[in-house]
Amino acid sequence: MTILSLNSSGSYRYRLTTHERNSNIPARLVNGNSPECLKPTSSYGGCKNFQGRNGKGRKGIGVISSKLSLSTVLSSGSSLGLLLDAYDDEYGGVIIEPEHLPSEANAFASILRTSLSNWKLKGKKGVWLKILQEHADLVPVAIKEGFDYHHADRGYIMLTYWIPNDEPCSLPDGPTHQIGVGGFVMNENKEVLVVQENVCPCQCSGVWKLPTGFINKSEEIFSGVVREVKEETGIDTEFLEVVAFRHVHKVAFEQSDLFFVCMLKPLSCDIRIDEKEIQAAKWMNLDEFLSQSFYEEDHMSKRVIDICAAAYENNYSGFINHHLTSKFDGKLSHLYYNHEMVKKLY
Amino acid sequence: MTILSLNSSGSYRYRLTTHERNSNIPARLVNGNSPECLKPTSSYGGCKNFQGRNGKGRKGIGVISSKLSLSTVLSSGSSLGLLLDAYDDEYGGVIIEPEHLPSEANAFASILRTSLSNWKLKGKKGVWLKILQEHADLVPVAIKEGFDYHHADRGYIMLTYWIPNDEPCSLPDGPTHQIGVGGFVMNENKEVLVVQENVCPCQCSGVWKLPTGFINKSEEIFSGVVREVKEETGIDTEFLEVVAFRHVHKVAFEQSDLFFVCMLKPLSCDIRIDEKEIQAAKWMNLDEFLSQSFYEEDHMSKRVIDICAAAYENNYSGFINHHLTSKFDGKLSHLYYNHEMVKKLY
Repeated sequence: MTILSLNSSGSYRYRLTTHERNSNIPARLVNGNSPECLKPTSSYGGCKNFQGRNGKGRKGIGVISSKLSLSTVLSSGSSLGLLLDAYDDEYGGVIIEPEHLPSEANAFASILRTSLSNWKLKGKKGVWLKILQEHADLVPVAIKEGFDYHHADRGYIMLTYWIPNDEPCSLPDGPTHQIGVGGFVMNENKEVLVVQENVCPCQCSGVWKLPTGFINKSEEIFSGVVREVKEETGIDTEFLEVVAFRHVHKVAFEQSDLFFVCMLKPLSCDIRIDEKEIQAAKWMNLDEFLSQSFYEEDHMSKRVIDICAAAYENNYSGFINHHLTSKFDGKLSHLYYNHEMVKKLY
Repeated sequence: MTILSLNSSGSYRYRLTTHERNSNIPARLVNGNSPECLKPTSSYGGCKNFQGRNGKGRKGIGVISSKLSLSTVLSSGSSLGLLLDAYDDEYGGVIIEPEHLPSEANAFASILRTSLSNWKLKGKKGVWLKILQEHADLVPVAIKEGFDYHHADRGYIMLTYWIPNDEPCSLPDGPTHQIGVGGFVMNENKEVLVVQENVCPCQCSGVWKLPTGFINKSEEIFSGVVREVKEETGIDTEFLEVVAFRHVHKVAFEQSDLFFVCMLKPLSCDIRIDEKEIQAAKWMNLDEFLSQSFYEEDHMSKRVIDICAAAYENNYSGFINHHLTSKFDGKLSHLYYNHEMVKKLY
């Protein structure tokens, strides 16, 4: 067991994106556990900085071994002032080390309380507590001590605690959006690739529509839409451009949704549907597609299809993806913009 | 206490967006608890459908009152076959009613186990379990029974359980993205509004950059960027267009990030900085801004600024927001597209 004195988290750390810095996400919560964490990383407007997975030269606020017995912690927790293994962040907050939590709930409750008192005395602000799924017993303990749920993903939940009474909480939200894609695929005969979905227990159940879906975790928009079209219809396509996107709130899980409409070029023509999701798919004449009463009555959908048809005739330019890296950027990062217009610049 | 027989969730329900339907998010998890839940709602490609907050004519799989005592449940749970209050979803899964969970952990463990056995026998697939923060004691119980964390937000955590052994889990992910915005504001003297941030402990600490930030929950891109610029610099602006967006993965909290670069028109000129976030802000000559060595070395940032400068000179067209509703859409929904090109169509 090691007890280190209060100190900042050292001079090596991960780089944040430009807007993340503004939003008080501590550097250690950014890409801290990714397999890429030994790489230097920065982003638009960012700068050079490094941190190894285990940190170099980092100094903690205090540390307690997860192997301590319940009795040891209970008897010594308050008298010796044992604290959770945690680190300062650059916003005056504290990040608790998830790997070093005591596994017993009572031991955790005791040391968490002592740690919070200590951080309050030191004028700390936000406290970040990531609890791995195997330590789920600790979740109700943290809630009882006043923590709130922040976000969760497979394998862990993140909780936060805001210490100052005289200052509103300025901790940033967790992820808020799901990303959907829809593909407009038209062949040389001006026939659009359309589908009817299995689950559509509503008045539009007979409507032929574009193939759509969510992108997977860490998937690109340009490849996600090609995959979705392939999965649903069996048609191979090539991504051309994003022609529009729709932003809507309070949809799935009460969260927000960004939906990107993409032009795709067909590379095959034989349809094989995914029967789990799709009832039917076919190539449908554009005029017939648009003459469905649903599209005549729906201004949003009508506008989208009009834009796609114009893009097909080269009368519209949307955004194309460009893999641009900065000198300090080790990450795969795509910038989408109006390529037709930028061609004139260079 | 009421026990209802197995049945579907009734013919009235919420509408899903086009791509949500494809991704197996049950209708009841879409906007189910929002204040707008008495409104009809649909979206791009969607259709008309309604559901009241408490449902109309809904029929559950089984129901147990949260007021049952521990002993009542333990003694009767297995023998009488009491089940959690839950509803079928349209993908062969089950959604447990969060308001009606037993508050005692042992009672919950017993009835959860009985319910899972029942649903397995009935060939159910995905099980959705939302646990409110005040029932945090139930989280470790659910994890012990084999549930996984799905996502969380202030006040609740969602867990899922996939029943079929012979079929991979097809439940969709929770929210995966944070949305950032950056504002390019240039005045008539070709001076750009730039900032230096307080927290930038790195080699770029002296770099002047565009004001950036995250949008708030349920905030629009076009208003979020105006708010961020106002908060950081005190400058009032008008949104003109999105000129580009960047997509990057495994950043904050290991999640993904979409960053929208926006052209803004300045409506005021006197700078008042937010000293909590910003060290300094000023109007800076465009050439001087671009001649900072950071931008000369960073292709991504350089391209973004070149695009913004071209847009300022009307030599570039990005995407503008349009509030388009469909006949069946009660939601505020914004479609962003290349307005200059579409003007030719109508």
